Amino acid sequence: MSSSEEIYDAVMDLARRRGFFWGSFEIYGGVAGFYDYGPLGVLLKRRIQDLWLKHFVYSNDMVVEVETPIINPRVVFKASGHEESFTDPVTECLKCGRIYRVDHLLKEVLGVEAEGLSPEEYKKIIVERNVKCPVCNGELAEPSYTLLLFKTEIGPYKGSLGYLRPENAQGMFVNFANVLRITRNKLPLGIAQVGRVARNEISPRQGLLRLREFTIMEIEFFFDPETVAEDIREYLSQDILDEKLNVLTAEDREKGVSEPRTYTVRELIENGVVKTPWLALWMGVGSRFLRDIGIDPARTRFIEKLPKERAHYSAQTFDQEVKTEKYGWIEVAGYAYRTTYDLERHIMFSNADLTFFKRFEKPMEKTVRKAFPNVSKIREAFGDKYSEFMKKLSEKRPSELYEELEKAGFIEVNGSRLGKEFFTFKEEVEKIHGVKIIPHVVEPSFGLERLLYVVLENNLKIREEKTVLTLPPQIAPYHVAVFPLVTGSRPEHKKIVELARKVYWDLVRAGFNCIYDDDGSIGRRYARVDEIGVPLAITVDYQSIEDNTVTVRDRDTTQQERVHLNDLKKHLAEKLGITVF
Amino acid sequence: MSSSEEIYDAVMDLARRRGFFWGSFEIYGGVAGFYDYGPLGVLLKRRIQDLWLKHFVYSNDMVVEVETPIINPRVVFKASGHEESFTDPVTECLKCGRIYRVDHLLKEVLGVEAEGLSPEEYKKIIVERNVKCPVCNGELAEPSYTLLLFKTEIGPYKGSLGYLRPENAQGMFVNFANVLRITRNKLPLGIAQVGRVARNEISPRQGLLRLREFTIMEIEFFFDPETVAEDIREYLSQDILDEKLNVLTAEDREKGVSEPRTYTVRELIENGVVKTPWLALWMGVGSRFLRDIGIDPARTRFIEKLPKERAHYSAQTFDQEVKTEKYGWIEVAGYAYRTTYDLERHIMFSNADLTFFKRFEKPMEKTVRKAFPNVSKIREAFGDKYSEFMKKLSEKRPSELYEELEKAGFIEVNGSRLGKEFFTFKEEVEKIHGVKIIPHVVEPSFGLERLLYVVLENNLKIREEKTVLTLPPQIAPYHVAVFPLVTGSRPEHKKIVELARKVYWDLVRAGFNCIYDDDGSIGRRYARVDEIGVPLAITVDYQSIEDNTVTVRDRDTTQQERVHLNDLKKHLAEKLGITVF
Repeated sequence: MSSSEEIYDAVMDLARRRGFFWGSFEIYGGVAGFYDYGPLGVLLKRRIQDLWLKHFVYSNDMVVEVETPIINPRVVFKASGHEESFTDPVTECLKCGRIYRVDHLLKEVLGVEAEGLSPEEYKKIIVERNVKCPVCNGELAEPSYTLLLFKTEIGPYKGSLGYLRPENAQGMFVNFANVLRITRNKLPLGIAQVGRVARNEISPRQGLLRLREFTIMEIEFFFDPETVAEDIREYLSQDILDEKLNVLTAEDREKGVSEPRTYTVRELIENGVVKTPWLALWMGVGSRFLRDIGIDPARTRFIEKLPKERAHYSAQTFDQEVKTEKYGWIEVAGYAYRTTYDLERHIMFSNADLTFFKRFEKPMEKTVRKAFPNVSKIREAFGDKYSEFMKKLSEKRPSELYEELEKAGFIEVNGSRLGKEFFTFKEEVEKIHGVKIIPHVVEPSFGLERLLYVVLENNLKIREEKTVLTLPPQIAPYHVAVFPLVTGSRPEHKKIVELARKVYWDLVRAGFNCIYDDDGSIGRRYARVDEIGVPLAITVDYQSIEDNTVTVRDRDTTQQERVHLNDLKKHLAEKLGITVF
Repeated sequence: MSSSEEIYDAVMDLARRRGFFWGSFEIYGGVAGFYDYGPLGVLLKRRIQDLWLKHFVYSNDMVVEVETPIINPRVVFKASGHEESFTDPVTECLKCGRIYRVDHLLKEVLGVEAEGLSPEEYKKIIVERNVKCPVCNGELAEPSYTLLLFKTEIGPYKGSLGYLRPENAQGMFVNFANVLRITRNKLPLGIAQVGRVARNEISPRQGLLRLREFTIMEIEFFFDPETVAEDIREYLSQDILDEKLNVLTAEDREKGVSEPRTYTVRELIENGVVKTPWLALWMGVGSRFLRDIGIDPARTRFIEKLPKERAHYSAQTFDQEVKTEKYGWIEVAGYAYRTTYDLERHIMFSNADLTFFKRFEKPMEKTVRKAFPNVSKIREAFGDKYSEFMKKLSEKRPSELYEELEKAGFIEVNGSRLGKEFFTFKEEVEKIHGVKIIPHVVEPSFGLERLLYVVLENNLKIREEKTVLTLPPQIAPYHVAVFPLVTGSRPEHKKIVELARKVYWDLVRAGFNCIYDDDGSIGRRYARVDEIGVPLAITVDYQSIEDNTVTVRDRDTTQQERVHLNDLKKHLAEKLGITVF
């Protein structure tokens, strides 16, 4: 295929025709920003998700998973800052009623980048440049910022305001103390979640790339910022440090550089490109993950966001991008350094203790000065009132009494001032076992539907005018197809069909995802499974019913091998790279 | 444990302490009806889900999966009948403002069953029996029905009304035509979906049993109602017909029988207990599935709903129930015969063609009478107007012309009446290849969180005063634990730790879900993994560093075996019942 549009059209045609995905609610005219996933789309998404879990969760002992609600009470997104900051500028055509996102409109009409301006600034541009509705040429309304959270009422009768989450992250932050306790109080601790989120986009277009409902795979990774690079290497396999990434830094971007440079994870850390080593390590894991789902590394890069482009919670962000044919470079993952922002906000709004008790290797010794009331002197001076005085004084710790005396020279009790002469002073050595810290957080966050799209686009090839989807076997929706060479009612044909059904069911029961197809010529059947990325196809033929062998044909080489049924499962598992115990 | 409360408390204590689940938004005081799932809960849910997919989707070639949005435009739930029928009766205390579900309140206060009455009938009971707020004794407001759908606006600025789905089903109905086409137009066709749903319950209590957000695993199974029982047996394995179920029919219930009878699936079909054989077959699959996740068959039953208890769309419904300690019998799945209800409603609201073209085995022949205009006679009678007449007549099919002539004796064209004399008559034999039908639907539908609860309760055992969770290995969150016998800095201790870490990582890379634990005595570590259901525990000891053998201890028998590291993966896979190729 020559042009980008052609590749895009081929992906969309395949997606619809074979059932990877299509626009939702078609029979009711569709609703922008919602997609349905068909039988192949569901399987492919699940495989990508499973591989993500393997890379980010299962293959280390720092990260665990949680699952939290989509509907949240308002306070959560007040605390997170979303209610205030998760907004887009909007305007409306006063004539035809069409709604526009102002910055997108200005880019479309005037070709200017106008992200993050104030409503007044937008208004000024609209007036000065005489911007009208591009459809009906009507006047545009006063621009304003509108909240992108879906609202709902929790409780059906007299409910209270809730929001659908626009990210999974807050589910991990509000549960930090719980999960820390369950995992026995150790840092670093990653809390992962794969789940649906919803964003009430103004006018979503761009197919799977801008959706109102989609799936995020996300880790909130909590760590002690005093962890040094040497410690980090214990946690992730050493060779991740040698992973090579294409990175375009904010510094380079500000200098006008547009080509990324290649860094190893080690170099990103040692050259101080990242503000915390963990950011680079997770970027390394993400780089491997993308390669494993069949994305060409030459078509991926990491772009550091400029300060004004970053979300309100982030101190440093890298977007992981993949080059697509129609849309150019698109973000498939973000790596944000959220620091202590979220935990601090939730501490502020909830008063909960969301700290980590950092135990010292050996207790620190600290000399503490204390003052103790001298009962007999107080009784002597104040008579019967002494017991009331003592009660009041006991409300303060001896160290507090000491400090107050040092500062003011006296302690006031019920209107009387007690000077230093009423106290006995002592010095004590106390052991301090640790200190409470608020952990820092880095967040790798992936959009599953965008991955689905780039996986399809990156793996769609044309061979002899036919589509072949060269999906890595690990993520192929179906592992293997089974074909009887012939159908029909002659005895040997019946035997072939019977054996083919038996092979199919044996493989299904062994856990392979299989397709059975007996419709049309073998050539057509190969073509049908090639275009949905089935790596291997088995044909049961005349020889099969003689000697229990079948042909196994490889999607990518189109080569066939004869394999005995006794060895079939092992052969397939090895070809597919499925674990063989 | 003796009492039901004790077992319940033990489950809830375990769930919270070890991190299966807990109430959501705890740091903000909690919100009723929402739960979070911790590291163990997520894994256990995923295993139950995977096993459900294996039983209901992967192990037959009739069912495929889709994934559709949670947010739906209003029209979907207008068509489905939910907007009208998915309601509960509610009243409010006029003094303290507490909200009650009226039927639950009457049951609590008066002990009467009062489901499904009209607001007037509820009012009558409240007035006659002088029912007051059970908390503050205040007057109760006029009862009314309130919609249990969560509402939202789609589009952030001037949005249109949408609902969060209360079931997955409508996503399959609106996509029936698409999925039928993709799967090459064959019935039966099952469309499955596992996904989040939301129900705005009035005052959810009962932990995981009544949630405002939860996960449904559901199939809409479309079939030709003329399929006879013999055909059905081809599709599902024969032995499902011998599966034994405890069933309490509506007929028996109406007679006052309260004990279920045992039927095989075959008997349910042959005795006409089920209105369609497919209902019984899916109940058979559901029965096996529950046994595989470790539910004692003696504690399960199927209850047929009485007509007044059924949802608005159902012609027959069986609930699959499990006996629990605290709540008695609870529904974990429903099997509803939705007939053509949903497809018909969506055809009505969308005008889309949601039919199946049922091809006849051989075309039917039908004699069709036709009338053809006689050009020369028309020209003769009407002169120049003839061509205009012919154009008009050609708008009708010859068979229509025939029928009109038979009925009226003439055809009116531009004010003139053309009698039979202007036509030539022919009889033709036409072939009819098939007929459009609206498929019938049965729906097996499971609540994943309820399964999570009953799995925990059914598998929680006390052994020597310690908790053991006897989860079937197929659904255990972790497959295996790895322990170094000792820790410490002596050279042989270091070697033991090093080998234990190596064993752990080897198993992780091979795809086992593993726990590594080096904290406390081996006995305490066994206890810790027993109570979360880890089936096998490996200890690396002094002998291990001599001869590369480890001990493998079985959770249920507490027996230990020595296994060489070379055979370890195979040994574990066999013990766990994981497929070995």
